[in-house]
Amino acid sequence: MINPIFLPELRAMLAEGDAEGLAGVMRDLHPATIAEFSEGLSVSETWRLLEHGSVERQAAVFVYFPLAKQAALVRGGDRLAGLLEAMAPDSRAELLRSLPREVGESLLPLLSKDERQDACRLLSYPPHSAGALMTTDFAWLPVDTTVAGALDLVRKQAPASETIYYLYVVDGERHLVGFVSLRDLVLAEPAVRIDELMRRDLITVRAQEDREDVARKLSKYDFLAIPVVDAEQRLLGIVTYDDAIDVVVQEATEDVLRGGGVGPLVENYLELSYWKVWRNRAVWLACLFVAELFTFTALAYFEDEMAKVLALSLFVPLCISTGGNSGSQAATLITRAMALGQMRPRDWRRVLRHELVVGTALGLTLGAIGFVRASLTPAAVLDSADRWMLAAVIAQSVALICLWGTLVGSMLPLIFRRLGVDPGYASSPFVATFVDVTGIVIYFSIAKVFLL
Amino acid sequence: MINPIFLPELRAMLAEGDAEGLAGVMRDLHPATIAEFSEGLSVSETWRLLEHGSVERQAAVFVYFPLAKQAALVRGGDRLAGLLEAMAPDSRAELLRSLPREVGESLLPLLSKDERQDACRLLSYPPHSAGALMTTDFAWLPVDTTVAGALDLVRKQAPASETIYYLYVVDGERHLVGFVSLRDLVLAEPAVRIDELMRRDLITVRAQEDREDVARKLSKYDFLAIPVVDAEQRLLGIVTYDDAIDVVVQEATEDVLRGGGVGPLVENYLELSYWKVWRNRAVWLACLFVAELFTFTALAYFEDEMAKVLALSLFVPLCISTGGNSGSQAATLITRAMALGQMRPRDWRRVLRHELVVGTALGLTLGAIGFVRASLTPAAVLDSADRWMLAAVIAQSVALICLWGTLVGSMLPLIFRRLGVDPGYASSPFVATFVDVTGIVIYFSIAKVFLL
Repeated sequence: MINPIFLPELRAMLAEGDAEGLAGVMRDLHPATIAEFSEGLSVSETWRLLEHGSVERQAAVFVYFPLAKQAALVRGGDRLAGLLEAMAPDSRAELLRSLPREVGESLLPLLSKDERQDACRLLSYPPHSAGALMTTDFAWLPVDTTVAGALDLVRKQAPASETIYYLYVVDGERHLVGFVSLRDLVLAEPAVRIDELMRRDLITVRAQEDREDVARKLSKYDFLAIPVVDAEQRLLGIVTYDDAIDVVVQEATEDVLRGGGVGPLVENYLELSYWKVWRNRAVWLACLFVAELFTFTALAYFEDEMAKVLALSLFVPLCISTGGNSGSQAATLITRAMALGQMRPRDWRRVLRHELVVGTALGLTLGAIGFVRASLTPAAVLDSADRWMLAAVIAQSVALICLWGTLVGSMLPLIFRRLGVDPGYASSPFVATFVDVTGIVIYFSIAKVFLL
Repeated sequence: MINPIFLPELRAMLAEGDAEGLAGVMRDLHPATIAEFSEGLSVSETWRLLEHGSVERQAAVFVYFPLAKQAALVRGGDRLAGLLEAMAPDSRAELLRSLPREVGESLLPLLSKDERQDACRLLSYPPHSAGALMTTDFAWLPVDTTVAGALDLVRKQAPASETIYYLYVVDGERHLVGFVSLRDLVLAEPAVRIDELMRRDLITVRAQEDREDVARKLSKYDFLAIPVVDAEQRLLGIVTYDDAIDVVVQEATEDVLRGGGVGPLVENYLELSYWKVWRNRAVWLACLFVAELFTFTALAYFEDEMAKVLALSLFVPLCISTGGNSGSQAATLITRAMALGQMRPRDWRRVLRHELVVGTALGLTLGAIGFVRASLTPAAVLDSADRWMLAAVIAQSVALICLWGTLVGSMLPLIFRRLGVDPGYASSPFVATFVDVTGIVIYFSIAKVFLL
């Protein structure tokens, strides 16, 4: 959001070349605030603001810009080397990942050899893995030191570490053997040995693990950071709580958007071009529209039945929306329960049994309401059809379609997850559309038996 | 989730009275792990496990139980006083809040006077406010001390503080004037004065602020904790990152569930009784069903038109689902953008202009597909209707309903927020249902002009 109050002030300072004022902004405000206030500045204006802070400060502000702006700044900047060195490894890897391949590769030579190797390794992990999320700037201790020695080490490592509140203890081969918190360290006697103080109940994640599982573990144990290890329990990096919060928010946004039939839109959509927003939304709406065309095909198939009893066609939207609503509801519940780690695909029998009971009860509830309403159909609309027969058809159809929607909606997310597809797609309008079409078939099949 | 491997082992230890083994479990495992493993234990079994740990340890495990289990343990326990004292104030308040009023009140006398007053104050804040989320166990420093003095104070306060990584600096009247991190403290020279070291760019929240805003602020600035102050900037408590993550997850769950037409279900729904699950889901489905009954009323109104051109009725589900889908899509986007703090109700003009353009483009896209499909209507279905006229009616209806759905879907969440209603309700199937009914009216009005 462009800040209407501070932006003109910043612009005025830049125009006047107010070095003292700009240095004050860079020094005194929180990096996130500086990034927010300068959102409306051009690339060259932003660089002119940034250069009034130290390289570390520049890097701190830089990571709070949206990735698109970071990329624009990279293309329009010539003082990049220091800034890239000063960025945290995980933020740097995220930026490199977001740049076009050739731009990213042209930046690598700006880094020192160690940083370059580190960046390449982080970039080699798949985008949504713990490895891609972790930082390699962690503080560590050898197992054979004392509290006093550890505090000395912490002071040395602090400037280059993302957090020094958790200190990971490794043996001679970099195997993770325990951890101590800075809290424990500050409270302990200086002569105590680290292997007596450290906690050994380690909770770790593998570099290949999905970032959602990482965030869930971190939040479950209320950790500040969680260590990432390889198959031999060697320490590769850590994921910190702030990145875990970002993951939770991003994944929730993806789930919500998919549930509403929108593709992932990471940025503020009011700031995207109409073209991009149209493309993102039109793809989904068009797919749903094409799928919904089958309702026409299904209805055309039952055209004769509709011509015979016109009242039947008046209940079509009611019957099919019942399936769509009950299907979305079940799919949403199951998808969310999986996202919260309460359920796995192998629980499908239990889910099926549960949804059979609940779906039947829900079907009977809606069927009863449907029966009452259909029995009140005005005589003019009824034509030659029998009032009670019509009510019975509507009640049975609504009940059966509701049960059918519930079962489809609850099983599809489990099947999707089993097949490695994001179960979020199952809670999207696609399930509703599928149940719409099959609902028409159920409805007219029942009508044929009882009314025609 | 009941753990199938460790539960029998725990049960065996309890049956054998294996005091050493149980003490080992309570000592060596992470409290969250102990709570997970003992999920299947009865109330008395759980108490027999807990009593093998220190009171602090008992409290640490206790807070990881679901609130329902905590409440059951409270009713079935007689060693509560120590445990309640040892719990963090925010967890204790959350437990008291979840208990029936008279049970909660019967527990208050078990607390010491200070703790009791504290609990009463925390309970007085509205449930979703910063005040209800905060803990009063924070570490603080007077402004006139030195680094060495501060480290001594931290060591004294550590056992009773939820975090000692952020230390809040207050003046003589408890006004918050700055903060230092333990990192800064450990790195600084012992003789440096706190008011030279402390950061003054304070980001605070008010006790009445919504917990979602609190979590958003904390995550925006990557804070470990954020201080809660009153109108005079006096420090009341802090909200820590782990509680903020919980809020983010809970609010996301609420949004997702509402989007799928389900009321909030905090617990694992497979573990709830069928009756509770049915009630929660039936209320929503029944409301939607009753609303959807108006599609029948609307269609009955256009019965004569349908009788004249039967092909019209075949396109009804297609036309109305277009409105539902485009409405849900727009509502989801706007609701999420507000949840992420990218948009406010006063931006409505900008949103309206944006959605007018995008909605028109989307309408034209779907209208074009509809035109093609309708022009391919089989002659048998067409009857006496003109093929091209029908195609024109479908194309215009789809385009207009899509635009209408988009506008309704984008404006409703803003209006809801303005009225103080959770905008999540607008992204729920209710909007889709509303647009369904109005879509029928749009469709047949256009058909009347061109076909009849």
